[in-house]
Order: sequence, then structure tokens, then C-alpha cells
Amino acid sequence: MDHFKYSNGTLQCEGTEAAAIAEELGTPTYVYSKAAFTDHFRSISDAFAPLRPKVCYSIKSCHNLHILRLLRGLGAAFDAVSAGEVRRALEAGANPQDIVFAGVGKTEAEMAFAIERNVGCFNVETPTELETLSRLATEFNREVRAALRVNPDVDAGTHPYTTTGKDENKFGIEMGQARELYAQYAHHPLLKLAGVHLHIGSPVNSAEPYVEMITKALTLIDELLAKNIYINLLNIGGGYGADYEGGESPTAAQYADAIIPLVKDRGLAIIMEPGRSISANAGILICRTTSVKQTKTKSFVITDGAMTDLIRPALYQAYHFAWPVAPGEAFTPPHRGKSLRLDGTSLVDIVGPVCESSDFLGKDRWLPPINKGDLIAVFSAGAYGAVMSSQYNSRPRAAEVLVDGESVQLIRRRETYDDLVAAEREV
Amino acid sequence: MDHFKYSNGTLQCEGTEAAAIAEELGTPTYVYSKAAFTDHFRSISDAFAPLRPKVCYSIKSCHNLHILRLLRGLGAAFDAVSAGEVRRALEAGANPQDIVFAGVGKTEAEMAFAIERNVGCFNVETPTELETLSRLATEFNREVRAALRVNPDVDAGTHPYTTTGKDENKFGIEMGQARELYAQYAHHPLLKLAGVHLHIGSPVNSAEPYVEMITKALTLIDELLAKNIYINLLNIGGGYGADYEGGESPTAAQYADAIIPLVKDRGLAIIMEPGRSISANAGILICRTTSVKQTKTKSFVITDGAMTDLIRPALYQAYHFAWPVAPGEAFTPPHRGKSLRLDGTSLVDIVGPVCESSDFLGKDRWLPPINKGDLIAVFSAGAYGAVMSSQYNSRPRAAEVLVDGESVQLIRRRETYDDLVAAEREV
Repeated sequence: MDHFKYSNGTLQCEGTEAAAIAEELGTPTYVYSKAAFTDHFRSISDAFAPLRPKVCYSIKSCHNLHILRLLRGLGAAFDAVSAGEVRRALEAGANPQDIVFAGVGKTEAEMAFAIERNVGCFNVETPTELETLSRLATEFNREVRAALRVNPDVDAGTHPYTTTGKDENKFGIEMGQARELYAQYAHHPLLKLAGVHLHIGSPVNSAEPYVEMITKALTLIDELLAKNIYINLLNIGGGYGADYEGGESPTAAQYADAIIPLVKDRGLAIIMEPGRSISANAGILICRTTSVKQTKTKSFVITDGAMTDLIRPALYQAYHFAWPVAPGEAFTPPHRGKSLRLDGTSLVDIVGPVCESSDFLGKDRWLPPINKGDLIAVFSAGAYGAVMSSQYNSRPRAAEVLVDGESVQLIRRRETYDDLVAAEREV
Repeated sequence: MDHFKYSNGTLQCEGTEAAAIAEELGTPTYVYSKAAFTDHFRSISDAFAPLRPKVCYSIKSCHNLHILRLLRGLGAAFDAVSAGEVRRALEAGANPQDIVFAGVGKTEAEMAFAIERNVGCFNVETPTELETLSRLATEFNREVRAALRVNPDVDAGTHPYTTTGKDENKFGIEMGQARELYAQYAHHPLLKLAGVHLHIGSPVNSAEPYVEMITKALTLIDELLAKNIYINLLNIGGGYGADYEGGESPTAAQYADAIIPLVKDRGLAIIMEPGRSISANAGILICRTTSVKQTKTKSFVITDGAMTDLIRPALYQAYHFAWPVAPGEAFTPPHRGKSLRLDGTSLVDIVGPVCESSDFLGKDRWLPPINKGDLIAVFSAGAYGAVMSSQYNSRPRAAEVLVDGESVQLIRRRETYDDLVAAEREV
């Protein structure tokens, strides 16, 4: 269900006019929908309910504390990839046992912190990390639960920058080595290495790679069982797709239909780590047009939103649908696909003010006539948007708001110049 | 001259051991050399001295206030691309007349701010901006000096993301339109449009594109003169190369030898906007190895430095030489080129802890044996390093220090978890 819709020619977020938010809070501003977060989280937890999974929201996709609190209220557990994310989950009220600590390069200080705070499970990525973790468990005299992130050598079919489950990626431990490590740590008094973790990339717009990776993991689990090594936890990761254009990603139910039969009666506790599929379409970025410019070969709509606010187009060549906030009824977009070309539109690049050619939000888009001052909405910006933003070009980062019907809550204030230089003054 | 050198098998920054800085302040940490900034700034200002240029350091390349103060003390003026950068220059003690305000998407609020503060010159990028600027000049009843950024349609031969002087780029105004605008605004009572600004990209590792663009600009200036439109300012921009490998960029003197004869006796005030050529080789990023990992096909050195600290490898496929801080004499690197392959080294990828495959600092590098805990220096990281850093994965940003001989000054404190969430709590 989509909570960002055009009505009478203007964009609404739930019961609120997107333009009214921009008027009140300025631009660029991230606008999130509470109903969208709620629906997306419930779609997944409902679809996979037969497995009674622990649904660990992937904090890195959209980490605002107020979003984490919202999801916590819906029953979410959390997938954290740094001590900072563990702290975010704790500050949002998570039970430490509902936090999974993942990440390929945890420092010893981060691991110690997470052990002290009693996080539920470590996803371990290297033999070195396992060695450190077992030593720390002994030093702290604490029982530590861990899963090995096994690299199933499955091609997720994503951008090379966001695939993670192939042999040549830095992530996970290959099957052969994993077998040895499970055997080696089978009888550790404090380190309980009883889980298999899988994560092959994002977005994975097909259920097939999940089936392939889970099948490989179950074979591994059976092999271990034959050696009296008991695995009781299977973490099937995340990476479920989101509809950037519409219709390209399977529904939660379609993923579930393929996955559930594989693991249902296996007696395994199941963890899932969805992020993008929950947050991507729960947020938009609203920018204002500062200039419109025509060169011999190109037209540019220059906005106050930039690669510093949303780096996905520059970094991954990602597609985000972008459209005026108040195009009028004649230009209400019937869909968000790349192919959209309405009568009366013209071809433009939507770019930001940052001083390099990588600063674009959309290239070669057929847009209605745009004037200075017009607001532009960039859709599907809830995941890997605000979290990746920077202050490059000394640009204060955007405000973030959470809409609930007609109510608009500021959940991150816009930064100021003083924020930019604070750490340089405090020395 | 290089102020980061190996001596007795360990890396020194001026008179200070790089390892000692990491021990004291932790990692990742940016280390800058005062002598390097000084030498690089003076090379340019000395080489171009016959033109008596205003050398406007490009703040965006490395914007730390303490660096700006250092350069100000050496006689630098400043090139700012946002109100935030104008404020940085002012806070660093710059005379407002020594600030050039550039940027393709200045907002009206930013322009008003800069007029109020009496900045020296606006580099204007669009007809819309020129219109706004002339209106604001009238509203404020202030004389405003401006240059048109003319797009010379010259190929700078850089990465597509950092070329800016071609017809299909968002930057500047094409020659034909520029002619019309100069004529249109020739007699404005307050907006003094008497400059031509050029900037074609970065890094431009040859003097030839500069010669080409300046020749075109001088033709334009002559044409305007024939119409009694007087241009008294030529801003030849920046983009001068830096040696990432060593030897690939011309020296300041080589650029100067090609450029000076073109503009010497033309009676034009000259502005330059060097950034990268001053800052790139004045800084390194020091990281610590958290894990070493061998897969079937690859070896990985995993460090606590990440794409969040230095995004250039991921975003521009940029090459940064990276080497252990204490490799011992046998592994002291004789140069920083891609081809370096010493006996006893092995092939690795140097990657960070961030959860995506774009998080790498160097791919396919022949490195000496590396163990957990070893420090790695990433060279030529002074430009477009710290300024582009983000808090993605809830990673606090790195500390920055400025070394002066044996003295080490903290110029940006390491961020904390509280910094990450401050703007979310204060709502």
C-alpha cells in the first residue's frame, strides 16, 4: 500500500500535504510515513508468521531513533552493524537479547561493548573475529551466542556494490572453512556457536537466490548434525526488494511462499533482517528548485537537494522516481516507472548544487514544466537515504519528519552551521 | 616535497611518528602536514606570481577551520561553494572581499547572506541566478561584483563525475548565452558583471585544457571589448592535479609556464581556485587492521577505516596508495605507483567494516604480511577525504590532526555516539 499519493494534483503523505511540510520546515526534507513503516513491517512479519521468526529490522537502512521506536512498538527486533547501531537499538528501548550484532569488521572494543550489554547474537564474519569473541567471552565470563555468516556463493543479481554472497566478496566464511570452525568451537564453555547466518546482498528481486542459499545452509546443518554438532538458529538475512519503479520486487508473501516450506518443520529458531523492504517506500525526499537551466544539449532542474542528501544515484546509479509535488491534475503520474513520458513533458536532468557532475538525483527524466521555486519529490528514499548523507560542501544535513495522518512530527532537526564546525571548535 | 616519509621502516609525518599519533588518538585518524600545506600553497602562489593572482583556496577540498586559518596566514583567499563555506572562511578570519562565492545552485537565502557579508565576487552559473542576484543587489542597495562561469566546452580528461567544463555538464553558461548576458547587464547600476570564470574539472593532469579554455575566454573578452563591454577579471579556476601515484601531474611551474604568457599583459585581475593540488598530498588517513581474511579466491585486510571516511575509491574508483605504517626497512616502499610489487608481498583487497561491497580502500594491492592490529596509511587523502565523510552505519567520523614538526594538534575531535543522535534527540 502506498502512503504517498497525488490527490487533486498535489502530493499527499497520508493525510498531510507534502507542500505544507516544505513550507513549514524548509527543504531539503525527508518525509516518512508511519503507516507505510507499519504496513511494510507487518507484511513481512505476517507473511513469515508460520516460522515465528525474530524480525530484526536492519537499522542501517534508516536509523532514526524515532523510527526505531516505532518499529520496536510493532514487535521488531534489530540488526545492528556497529556499536553505534547497537546503542541506537538500546536507546530505542530494545531488549538487548533482541539485537543481532553483524558486520565484517567489528573492533575488539565494539565486541566488548556488545558483550557487556548482553546482545542476543553475534553474526561472525571471520575466523579472527571468532577467536577474539571466544577470548572476550572467557574474559567477561559471559555466555555469548553466535552465528557464522556463511558465504553460500550465490549470485544475488544486484549491483556489484551491494552483492555480498559471492566468493570474491569480503563477507562471510566459505562453507569448507565454516565446517571446520563449527567443529573447532563445538564445545566452547561460553561461546555458543549454534547459528548459521546468511545474507547475499540487496535488493534481491527474486525468491530464487534465497531458496538456493537456504538449501545450501540446510545441507550444512545436516552435515554438522551427523557430526553431533547442533545448530538451532538459522538467520536468513535480508535484502528483500522494494518497488523503486513499481512491481519489480516480489511481495513479502511471495518470498515467504518460497522460503517457508524449506525451513518450516526443521526445529530451527529463525531470524530475518529486512531493511530496505520496510524503509525504502516509507520515505521521500522533498527538494526545492533553485534554478532551471538550458544548455545547447541539455536541460537541468537544479534543486537544493543533492548527492549529499541522497547518494544512491551517484554511487549505485540507482533509479529514484522524481516528480513535482504540485504538478496539477493533468500531470498526475500514473506510475513511477522509468518509461513514464506524459504529453507536455520535456527531458531534463535533476541535479543538486554540489560542485561535481556526480551530483544528480535523476538523469533523462520527462518532467512537466518546472519553474524556480517548484518543489520536487524524490520517491523511495526511505532506505539508504538520510543515513548515508554527508556535510560535503559544508551543507547542513536535511530535516526528517514522521507523518501520522494529519500530524507531522520533526524527528531530526535540520543541521546548522554550528553543527558543521562544532567538532573543530571543541579541540 | 613530501612530508610523509618512511624512515627506519616506519612512517613519519614531518618529525612525528605516524604510529604515535594512532596510539594516542585512536583510529581512523586523518593526519595533515603543516609543512605540506605550506609548500603546496607557496608552489602555486610563487609559480603564478608574475600574474599577481588572488589565490582562492578551494575550501571544499579540505575545509577544516584550522587548515583555513593556516592558509589564510600564508596569504590565501578563499573559494566557497555554499553559505556554509562562506561562513567557514569568515570564521577563519578571511576578509570578505577575499571570498569568491561559486556554486551551481546557490539559494536565494545563501546569496542574500553573502551580499550582506560583502563577499568579493559571485561566480554566476545560470541566467536565473543572475536575475536573482541583480534583484538582491537592488534590494540591499549594495554593489555586487560577479563573474559569469562560462562553459568553454573543453574536455578536462577527468572521471565523468568530476569533469565540469563540457556542454552536457550542469555547470556554467555557454559562450553564446554568456555574450548576451554580459550585454544585458552591462549597465546595471549595482551588479558589476565584469568577470569571466572558468573551471573545467579536477584533476586536470595537463596544462593543455587550461590553455584551450583561457584562449577561448580571451577571445570572448576581446569580442565584448569590441562592444564596449569591459571585463577586468579573469578567474582561471582550479583543478590542478595532484600526484596520487607520483609524477602524473604537472608541477605548478609547468602549469604556470603554459598559462602566464596567455594572460600576462592583458590588464586583467586574475583569480585562481586551487584545492586538490594543495590539500591532497598534505594528508593521510591512518586505519588499524581489525581482521585478515582469506577466501578461496581473495585475501582481505579489513580495517577500521571505511568508505564512510574516504569515499573516493567507491565513488570515483580513485586510486590511493595504501601501505603499512610500520613495514620495516625491507618493505619500505620505493614509490606509490599502482605497479609496486615488492618481493614477499601478496595480493589483497583493503576493505572497511561497512556492510556493502563498495566499502573498499584499495583493490588488488601487493602488500607485505599484515596482521590484526597493524596500522595502514592511506596516502593522498587530504583532498575530498574528511570533507566527504558520513556517519553511515552509525560510524562516528574520524579525528583530524595537524602536524607541525614534532607537534601534533588535534583539529577535529573524534565524534561520539552522542554526536550521531544529537539532532534526533533535540526535537
